[in-house]
Amino acid sequence: MSNVIENICSTELSPEGSAIRKTFVKGTLYPIEVGMKTLSLSRTYCCGEHEFSSFPLYDTSGPFSDSSISIDPEKGIPAVRDRWPFPERVTEPSTCSAAPGTLSTRIPLRAKQGHGITQMYFARKGIITPEMEYVAIRENQQLESWTASFSKGGHSFTPFTPEFVRKEIAEGRAIIPANINHPELEPMIIGRNFRVKINANIGNSALGSCIEEEVEKAVWACRWGADTVMDLSTGKDIHRTREWILRNSPVPIGTVPIYQALEKAGGRAEDLSWELYRDTLIEQAEQGVDYFTIHAGILLRHLPAADRRMTGIVSRGGSIMAKWCRVNKQENFLYTQFDEICRILQAYDIAVSLGDALRPGSIADANDEAQFGELKVLGELTKVAWGYDVQVMIEGPGHVPLHMVEENMQKQLEYCHEAPFYTLGPLVTDIAAGYDHINSAIGGALIASHGCAMLCYVTPKEHLGLPDRNDVREGIISHKVAAHAADLAKGNPVAWLHDELMSRARYAFAWEDQFNLSLDEERNRKVHAESLASGGHTEKNPDFCTMCGPDFCSMKKSKEVTAIR
Amino acid sequence: MSNVIENICSTELSPEGSAIRKTFVKGTLYPIEVGMKTLSLSRTYCCGEHEFSSFPLYDTSGPFSDSSISIDPEKGIPAVRDRWPFPERVTEPSTCSAAPGTLSTRIPLRAKQGHGITQMYFARKGIITPEMEYVAIRENQQLESWTASFSKGGHSFTPFTPEFVRKEIAEGRAIIPANINHPELEPMIIGRNFRVKINANIGNSALGSCIEEEVEKAVWACRWGADTVMDLSTGKDIHRTREWILRNSPVPIGTVPIYQALEKAGGRAEDLSWELYRDTLIEQAEQGVDYFTIHAGILLRHLPAADRRMTGIVSRGGSIMAKWCRVNKQENFLYTQFDEICRILQAYDIAVSLGDALRPGSIADANDEAQFGELKVLGELTKVAWGYDVQVMIEGPGHVPLHMVEENMQKQLEYCHEAPFYTLGPLVTDIAAGYDHINSAIGGALIASHGCAMLCYVTPKEHLGLPDRNDVREGIISHKVAAHAADLAKGNPVAWLHDELMSRARYAFAWEDQFNLSLDEERNRKVHAESLASGGHTEKNPDFCTMCGPDFCSMKKSKEVTAIR
Repeated sequence: MSNVIENICSTELSPEGSAIRKTFVKGTLYPIEVGMKTLSLSRTYCCGEHEFSSFPLYDTSGPFSDSSISIDPEKGIPAVRDRWPFPERVTEPSTCSAAPGTLSTRIPLRAKQGHGITQMYFARKGIITPEMEYVAIRENQQLESWTASFSKGGHSFTPFTPEFVRKEIAEGRAIIPANINHPELEPMIIGRNFRVKINANIGNSALGSCIEEEVEKAVWACRWGADTVMDLSTGKDIHRTREWILRNSPVPIGTVPIYQALEKAGGRAEDLSWELYRDTLIEQAEQGVDYFTIHAGILLRHLPAADRRMTGIVSRGGSIMAKWCRVNKQENFLYTQFDEICRILQAYDIAVSLGDALRPGSIADANDEAQFGELKVLGELTKVAWGYDVQVMIEGPGHVPLHMVEENMQKQLEYCHEAPFYTLGPLVTDIAAGYDHINSAIGGALIASHGCAMLCYVTPKEHLGLPDRNDVREGIISHKVAAHAADLAKGNPVAWLHDELMSRARYAFAWEDQFNLSLDEERNRKVHAESLASGGHTEKNPDFCTMCGPDFCSMKKSKEVTAIR
Repeated sequence: MSNVIENICSTELSPEGSAIRKTFVKGTLYPIEVGMKTLSLSRTYCCGEHEFSSFPLYDTSGPFSDSSISIDPEKGIPAVRDRWPFPERVTEPSTCSAAPGTLSTRIPLRAKQGHGITQMYFARKGIITPEMEYVAIRENQQLESWTASFSKGGHSFTPFTPEFVRKEIAEGRAIIPANINHPELEPMIIGRNFRVKINANIGNSALGSCIEEEVEKAVWACRWGADTVMDLSTGKDIHRTREWILRNSPVPIGTVPIYQALEKAGGRAEDLSWELYRDTLIEQAEQGVDYFTIHAGILLRHLPAADRRMTGIVSRGGSIMAKWCRVNKQENFLYTQFDEICRILQAYDIAVSLGDALRPGSIADANDEAQFGELKVLGELTKVAWGYDVQVMIEGPGHVPLHMVEENMQKQLEYCHEAPFYTLGPLVTDIAAGYDHINSAIGGALIASHGCAMLCYVTPKEHLGLPDRNDVREGIISHKVAAHAADLAKGNPVAWLHDELMSRARYAFAWEDQFNLSLDEERNRKVHAESLASGGHTEKNPDFCTMCGPDFCSMKKSKEVTAIR
């Protein structure tokens, strides 16, 4: 495995002679260093009053794109956060008895009794944490002066300050998922007033995959731009898989703890218990999981509406809890024990992602009584979690036709008090199997443009099987297209600059800049070279577009037209 | 070549033992037979009060999916329309001197002097043509009773009658591009009150491709669902390429005649002339081209605004005409001679697709003065064409950020008197090279949901090179996802039924039905089999989803939950 990951890092992230190099921006409040990929452009582009000969790219790949660091995946990546001072964070060692096969020798921490340690706790106290300064620098990408002068359609923008970050977190509109036991993490923020994020799911299932593959997939996902990764493993070695992933992950890791609890219950949903679940939460909390999906909003009273649906319950966690409730004739223990759950999350600063157990699994079930009934309960639980200073996001659908997408966002904002929305798609048709990454990108772009903060990727294998390496890449990039399109629609100045530089490079036939500014420089460089070669051209940077050829290139002609003036 | 096309037809369209067979629905007004692919479902599904054990799929592949017809591409496909009676259509033979290498021995027809023959002419006279009945049957897909009873969100629907088709054409809201010299055509309709259509571009450029490949691409495009095909050839053998494509095409063929005219002018835009262009129009008209893109709306007064743009003029036809205007210091001859052009189109019933020479080539140029200035002129020209009973559609952008997409549709409806809109994308970001089919599907789904009638596909090679066979397939299916998503959003009852059947099949684990109801049954069957095999499963139709495996299948559990009730 080590070889494979080394390969991802060295040859694909930092090719010899590449125009992209890893750079770091230091904090002013804290001794933090925020990593970026800085692209040296082949020429200087004038954008309004600003000149750019380089462009900093938001970088999710952490130390894997830093050629100065040699990584041994069996030891994990550097624990950067351990070097940061947390004057206010009062913790104590904790030991989880259920943690076999831990890679690190580090003793897990938890909040000392009576002390708040979550980002929301500090934000509400008016305290800016190192994580808040980190994400502020990251969102600005060093482009504060551009952002401050940017104006599109009458809007003007304020650079993302640490204070702005603090305020958004204090008011519940954004979260920084950052378990104190995940020191390898490079903090990131999820909220609708920031760059739209994407999540990539990985995880073995009974039908395939192994630990090595999963860790490789996590690194691979970060390399292509996943902002968070969910480990949805359900097979053997759940604990060890997660440990390997966490110790090698610069991005937040999310899980659905009910999956592991179900394994512990021998696969019988009806045999689950609060105690078993609680122990699983603590086990994962001490490993460093940054956010938990918890299906606490599906209640007995929602089930009749779900029974009447075309495709019932399509959330795995939701179907498990529904079965538990019906067999045991009891209310969902994730709901009845939600205060207890919050006390656990609070002690490690784990964010809760309130699961949409009743998300529609077909166009016909979209925006129905079951779905919106559960969403209201998620809104109640949001307030409960906030009572413990636990950061919250809300999961969303699912299958929703285009004209019903906006209503999802409106209702979520209304019912859930503006907590960040995190959606799977939505898929805008049921018939796109094999192309569901595109299906999901369509719905995702639209809902994110209306304010959804994070999109869960869907790969071409959705509805058919488990994604392989190439599916992960396709799934991530298609959702990065969607997320970026939404950033443009919301007027994010950094996104607008990115497109402006790309278009200026395109009009200037600056091919290398085009490749480097695109979402998949590797593929584009290769495709373009093949196109040129098949046309018998030997220039590497021809001054015409390879689609139309030299005689019919519109941009070449357009320049001639302007020159005649 | 013959072998390759035979192969596309026989093995891929009508696999032995397939549940999909070619069926025909007869007209009641005319002796027409409308071909469909009828899918036999593995079980009977109840949808409301209706039961379905089969489902008719809209079929663009013509005789290529009819195993009873043997095709010799060197002779062309059967001239079905020649068998239809046109009592009112008064034509006379015409000979085009500039038509070397014609495959057919058929003498081209044109309207007899003083006689109207266009679909719009007949529609306005209150006459239903065979083509109108054909498209009415096609849009209903034999599902009139379902359509009549369908109601979603308070809307109810009237089945598409031939009279409704006639009225839409008479009022300019829809067109049937059907040159009387394209007898191989199976008519289709483009208008916002019908199923959203997609166009696939093919065409050699100086950098590659050959005639055989282009014909194969056209057949391949029809096989995957292209509703029309544009032949954008610019290299050698333009005439012969087009002849081969037309004689083998069951879908309307569009061209941009200025490309061939430019070749005739030795590649020098400034040397173009009206006479040269007019002869090219007639040459192509007599071959049977069904619609022409004509960049008649770009005027001298628009050029200063285009000069100020970030990416100037990115339409090939637009940049050619702009150069001609500036060098010759004259107004666009396509504009000044537009009446003359209409008289030619009128004589063959060719539709005009008014080109958007000033479509934005970057996000920064979207919805600008140049673009909307030209759109207003296209609105004036629409009225001129309608004066000659020439059917019109309007081409649209281009690069447009998501939040500015709807304005394009609104302005188009307002300026162009509800003539159908036909857009390229729009692409919602500039940075998605390599993934522009997804970029375009996002913008396309949105604009089509607001009323755009046809989407021009974009392939993964956009901005990089010429599409190959696989790019064509990816480009078509991604835009079929977009078009179908828009049909759902607009409440098309046939689209809703399609999704309902898919979801019922999915919930029933009826895998074969799922494959057949999806947009790419071939890929899905293969991917699913590989997923099962890699998990060591030997059943062909397991009762669990191959993504989650048998123990974590939510739909399996969901049914158990409902059973407990």
